[in-house]
Amino acid sequence: MTIKKKNILEFEKLYRANFVNSISGFKSASLIGTISLKKKNNLAIFSSVIHVGANPPALGFLMRPFSVDRHTYKNIKEVGLYTINHINKEIFKKAHQTSARYDEDVSEFDECGLTPEYSEKLKAPYVKESKIKIGLKFVDEQEIKYNGTIFIVGEIDDSRSLE
Amino acid sequence: MTIKKKNILEFEKLYRANFVNSISGFKSASLIGTISLKKKNNLAIFSSVIHVGANPPALGFLMRPFSVDRHTYKNIKEVGLYTINHINKEIFKKAHQTSARYDEDVSEFDECGLTPEYSEKLKAPYVKESKIKIGLKFVDEQEIKYNGTIFIVGEIDDSRSLE
Repeated sequence: MTIKKKNILEFEKLYRANFVNSISGFKSASLIGTISLKKKNNLAIFSSVIHVGANPPALGFLMRPFSVDRHTYKNIKEVGLYTINHINKEIFKKAHQTSARYDEDVSEFDECGLTPEYSEKLKAPYVKESKIKIGLKFVDEQEIKYNGTIFIVGEIDDSRSLE
Repeated sequence: MTIKKKNILEFEKLYRANFVNSISGFKSASLIGTISLKKKNNLAIFSSVIHVGANPPALGFLMRPFSVDRHTYKNIKEVGLYTINHINKEIFKKAHQTSARYDEDVSEFDECGLTPEYSEKLKAPYVKESKIKIGLKFVDEQEIKYNGTIFIVGEIDDSRSLE
């Protein structure tokens, strides 16, 4: 079966988004935890976390900063720290619920039943229920001018697992 | 267990690379097929393919252009077209073999026992043995200045599957 760009553009909007989001193959979803200067925490789900470098250790992810992800972007830029938290089968429904639209003063942790956890070192909130948690320092951003998405790079500062 | 950045930097080099490459969770590996202006094809494995946008449909991946990936980068820039091919259990060993270092005039297709397949429309080679194949037109690149990697974005021009 061949599907041309023309066919993809004719798909219904949500079907098209799911089609293109799936076509690169299976991938991990992660919860990104941030906090604002006013100490309001935020949690959002992303499926674009990738390896950027090993020395220094760094991860990147792509975001649409002027849409639903805007609180995550604003907080990362304000505070310079964020967390990436793995999702497991006990929390995947709650994790997906974070992608609903909430006002800036609403915490997705509260709304979705997940628990913020703070380390002594890192201001940004980890997800207590996550089994692998990574604390990052923001180090670079590059706008993809083609469609206005932004690739955010963070250096791993701290990582913790339950084992 | 907590692993600090200091600990990661003390890991043996290959262990560190595997640790950081794994820490974001499971992910798909894909084969990226390219061709040079002199019609030499090239095939390389990447684990960083992500969704960039649905309208227009676009995918991105991160590369280290001045190391083992240099032929892929050079070809994409020269010809402006490339393919992303899913890996399946019949070809995963051959697919991983493409990451060995070969000279520019050696085709990884030949060396690794995979078959280049050309469509009428797209000059770049698909992998015949792959079940999901995507043809892309290069549209953007952004250097991650932090470590010299490059995020490459392509618009989906054509996609084909065996079903």
